[in-house]
Amino acid sequence: MGEEIQAIRWHDDAVVLLDQTRLPGEEVTLACTDVDSLVDAVHRLVVRGAPALGAVGGYGVAVAMLQGQRDGWSTDRLDAEVDRVRDARPTAVNLAWGVDRVRPLMSQGVDAVVAEAHRIVAEDTAANRQLSRHGADWILARCARRPLRVVTHCNTGALATTGWGTAFGIIRELAQRGEVELVYVDETRPLLQGARLTAWECAQHGIPYVVQADGAAASTILRGFADFAVIGADRIARNGDTANKIGSVGVALACAAAGIPFVVAAPSSTVDLATPSGDDIEIELRSGDEVTRWSGMPTTPAGARGFNPAFDVTPAAYISAVVTERGVVEPGPGVTIEAIAGGA
Amino acid sequence: MGEEIQAIRWHDDAVVLLDQTRLPGEEVTLACTDVDSLVDAVHRLVVRGAPALGAVGGYGVAVAMLQGQRDGWSTDRLDAEVDRVRDARPTAVNLAWGVDRVRPLMSQGVDAVVAEAHRIVAEDTAANRQLSRHGADWILARCARRPLRVVTHCNTGALATTGWGTAFGIIRELAQRGEVELVYVDETRPLLQGARLTAWECAQHGIPYVVQADGAAASTILRGFADFAVIGADRIARNGDTANKIGSVGVALACAAAGIPFVVAAPSSTVDLATPSGDDIEIELRSGDEVTRWSGMPTTPAGARGFNPAFDVTPAAYISAVVTERGVVEPGPGVTIEAIAGGA
Repeated sequence: MGEEIQAIRWHDDAVVLLDQTRLPGEEVTLACTDVDSLVDAVHRLVVRGAPALGAVGGYGVAVAMLQGQRDGWSTDRLDAEVDRVRDARPTAVNLAWGVDRVRPLMSQGVDAVVAEAHRIVAEDTAANRQLSRHGADWILARCARRPLRVVTHCNTGALATTGWGTAFGIIRELAQRGEVELVYVDETRPLLQGARLTAWECAQHGIPYVVQADGAAASTILRGFADFAVIGADRIARNGDTANKIGSVGVALACAAAGIPFVVAAPSSTVDLATPSGDDIEIELRSGDEVTRWSGMPTTPAGARGFNPAFDVTPAAYISAVVTERGVVEPGPGVTIEAIAGGA
Repeated sequence: MGEEIQAIRWHDDAVVLLDQTRLPGEEVTLACTDVDSLVDAVHRLVVRGAPALGAVGGYGVAVAMLQGQRDGWSTDRLDAEVDRVRDARPTAVNLAWGVDRVRPLMSQGVDAVVAEAHRIVAEDTAANRQLSRHGADWILARCARRPLRVVTHCNTGALATTGWGTAFGIIRELAQRGEVELVYVDETRPLLQGARLTAWECAQHGIPYVVQADGAAASTILRGFADFAVIGADRIARNGDTANKIGSVGVALACAAAGIPFVVAAPSSTVDLATPSGDDIEIELRSGDEVTRWSGMPTTPAGARGFNPAFDVTPAAYISAVVTERGVVEPGPGVTIEAIAGGA
């Protein structure tokens, strides 16, 4: 069992990121001291994962303020730069949420903003621990077979959060209770967050795993090899519809067909009550090159275009449970998830 | 529009294969004059695709006979070597079918075997043309929107067959009729037959396409971007359950959820009436390295294991239509597909 992984921390007036584009081959950090480098890091997915982006939003405001002091920005310029951090990726609600949470403190100075960002981090990690216990309890009550075999998609561990993890946090919690036989890690094309990052976290924590092609997930589930699936979320609409990494809804459809639970886990800050349903969630369309090239080498004929939506939406009808630190909701007709949403 | 692609041909006492592991970067052929090199080519997927493997089975017997003459094999040894060709891959019924079809002619000499293998090729190509017309007619009768947008998985074109193609043959037929707007080509991990081969065939024939991650297929379908999906088959059981490239059943589940047709297309030789249902189909488990490595480079942490079933089974309940050169069957309770199966 390795020590806890830190994907993001504040050090020497910089946001220090564990560069996730280099994992699992290299463990390298990147210190961002200006808005350009931070936004670029967010675009390139040096840091990713909805809860981690919440912290990036908070610390990002501090970075903008410090750069504004150095470069003599006007208030308008500073506002525009903060908005640039806020809008660096459109689908995850947490980035905007993190910015909006610290923004009222800007008038009190950088230290107040940084202190609030630290609170975001501390609260997120605590929330992850709590939601992991809720999720583990729910799954153990629903799944009879022991030990458990689970499918997960993308990366939702410490690397995707401020610490511990969300969906992967539930797997860790179950593993600590001795209940995990095997994790089927979807490799998660095009950027392989599963193969590179979730596999790496499994190895760090000594959790047994195999990596499978994303296309194998449905078959693994239909053949009875898995007892449940659990994924994270980038945005959860009021009705429970959930945006998450592309490929998630396919896992959900297979779970529904096989009659096993499909669980969504995220901190309550991921619930966006202002978004009525999945139809209202903007889906980030990333460069097709991520699909048509591999480490810079083309995998397709010259001139091929890639179609590369970064996220998909799983309708609430296919979700057995939504878990936040506030508890568990089982979506259904007339059910809203307000009870486990964030807010005062 | 390029000239017709030939994945497999008989030339100078050798099976000459277009090396599909090198596409789309290089167009290189490989001539196999002994059983070892042919079986190795089948294992390495130099040649793949169920209908093409039928021709490999037929010509493979001739290769074994010629090698046996050179090396002075006993009848038992020759039988064993022919069995080695027959069993080189377990899931596709066509390889064994091709061997079994020419085997009774072995006593008449190599020329008779080669002539029968040529007939397999001619019949397969003709069957593909015919099934493509049936499939196109069925789809045009079922899908109202024009022009059509289609999802396909793996490669089922001329490269996978003796010529023209099966599922991709239907797409070609529709394109020739001016009815295709866009093909969503699943990249088809782990070996990228979609990104490398289907994309290449689309480009050869001037058919508009985009390549997407396999995980994107369900979302593309649920968002209403596709009018139908069509795939090939490695084995079709008596009840319509269909084994095909891993990732196929996920496409089927999404089509069912979206209410659009999911079509299976294959020559009638792919129908195996001796197999009652998908539960009776052996699924080839290939090396996990195909998942955990990319062009020899690891994509996962050291020590990671890959789980790599090459095929999955789509239950007949999720299949709207099975198309062979003999016609179209819509699977349903009590329906068998004998009417479109091969045989005298």
